[in-house]
Amino acid sequence: MENKPKAVVLLSGGLDSSTTLAIARQQEFETHALTFRYGQKHEIEIESARRVAARLGAAQHIIAEFDLRQFGGSALTGDIPVPKLRNPEEISRGIPVTYVPARNTIFLSFALAWAEVLPANDIFIGVNAIDYSGYPDCRPEYIEAYQKMANLATKAGVEGRQRLLIHTPLIRMTKADIIRTGIGLGVDYSLTNSCYDPTPVEDSPGEGIACGECDACLLRLMGFAEAGVKDPLRYREGRGRG
Amino acid sequence: MENKPKAVVLLSGGLDSSTTLAIARQQEFETHALTFRYGQKHEIEIESARRVAARLGAAQHIIAEFDLRQFGGSALTGDIPVPKLRNPEEISRGIPVTYVPARNTIFLSFALAWAEVLPANDIFIGVNAIDYSGYPDCRPEYIEAYQKMANLATKAGVEGRQRLLIHTPLIRMTKADIIRTGIGLGVDYSLTNSCYDPTPVEDSPGEGIACGECDACLLRLMGFAEAGVKDPLRYREGRGRG
Repeated sequence: MENKPKAVVLLSGGLDSSTTLAIARQQEFETHALTFRYGQKHEIEIESARRVAARLGAAQHIIAEFDLRQFGGSALTGDIPVPKLRNPEEISRGIPVTYVPARNTIFLSFALAWAEVLPANDIFIGVNAIDYSGYPDCRPEYIEAYQKMANLATKAGVEGRQRLLIHTPLIRMTKADIIRTGIGLGVDYSLTNSCYDPTPVEDSPGEGIACGECDACLLRLMGFAEAGVKDPLRYREGRGRG
Repeated sequence: MENKPKAVVLLSGGLDSSTTLAIARQQEFETHALTFRYGQKHEIEIESARRVAARLGAAQHIIAEFDLRQFGGSALTGDIPVPKLRNPEEISRGIPVTYVPARNTIFLSFALAWAEVLPANDIFIGVNAIDYSGYPDCRPEYIEAYQKMANLATKAGVEGRQRLLIHTPLIRMTKADIIRTGIGLGVDYSLTNSCYDPTPVEDSPGEGIACGECDACLLRLMGFAEAGVKDPLRYREGRGRG
């Protein structure tokens, strides 16, 4: 058996991170998927992550748990409701209330710990600077600063045994590009969840019906429409278009 | 009541972080202490942290939980035993097995999330570059890179409402200096725990007898001896000197 280099891939179970996992696999990495249960309302995405990791042949899948509700400050973890919109033009130009303070920094830090132990020189994260140019922790300059810090943070980095690279294959892609890429790589988007506020399906734990009205649903639906592909997800009250 | 600026202080319950909390208080910050239950064998330190936070008047104390045993790679969280030594000369010149991969990066990332929400511009961490010059995530260049990344990571940083500073008041101090400073600020070192392998005291949860033989005990005892002060902690079989 060939000896592939290992990579840690952050996997939320959404469209972007699932495509990222497929890209890492295509680049001949042995993938080690990392998912977080952090107190998100849409915990259903963890079940999606499990299915995606299994389907895309991740060598290992760790689900790390902590509770960001202790700190608050986001509609995804706190009492603020997830905003519902009618069309993509309503998506906030600033930073939306669904932003979770320092979330990517926390996620990357756990990925760094795992990368040091595996060892792996490569971490993949599906951030995208197009959809929300306002998300501070999705910008290229942030990722670059993180990578620089990470290379000073670890034993292996200091000893020169490891040169850590943070891969952001989606950073400049539109949602439609991401979907086309994923379909080309065999990603089954019916396994993913993008919705911030899915309705659980009775008697089917881990299943959810997407709301079709949150930022994430609107961006996803717009991406599928632009790519000319039907979104295989179930949406509430016929909200899925295309 | 005066309106003090808020600061997040990382507090393990050990000698260094307890002194750091006292320094932040002396600098007129309203202190928000942050402790982690991360799967460390010496979990007893969390009880020390509680007592120190209460005694030093922290405005708030959060204990965040996650399990670094999922990733392994350290004697503090895994099956490797904590090394026992006879004298300080035996302390490893390289990076010891008690190093926990990416631990400070993870800790600082939770502090960053809390700082963004409070909001606070200031984070205190009791790292020290003297004792273990080999610890990668205790070096000034690491802290500087972290601060730079942190200022690109947050909403408040991007909007120019926050300029995050990471304070490392102990970074150039010897253990004896730290102890003298803490005593001057009224730190009660009998409340702290430094030992990596304390023996629990029966019928007194959260109490432990220090081993006197791990790296952390040896450095602590050496510091007290050099400062000419008796360490108020209980040590196994009369191992406490001074």
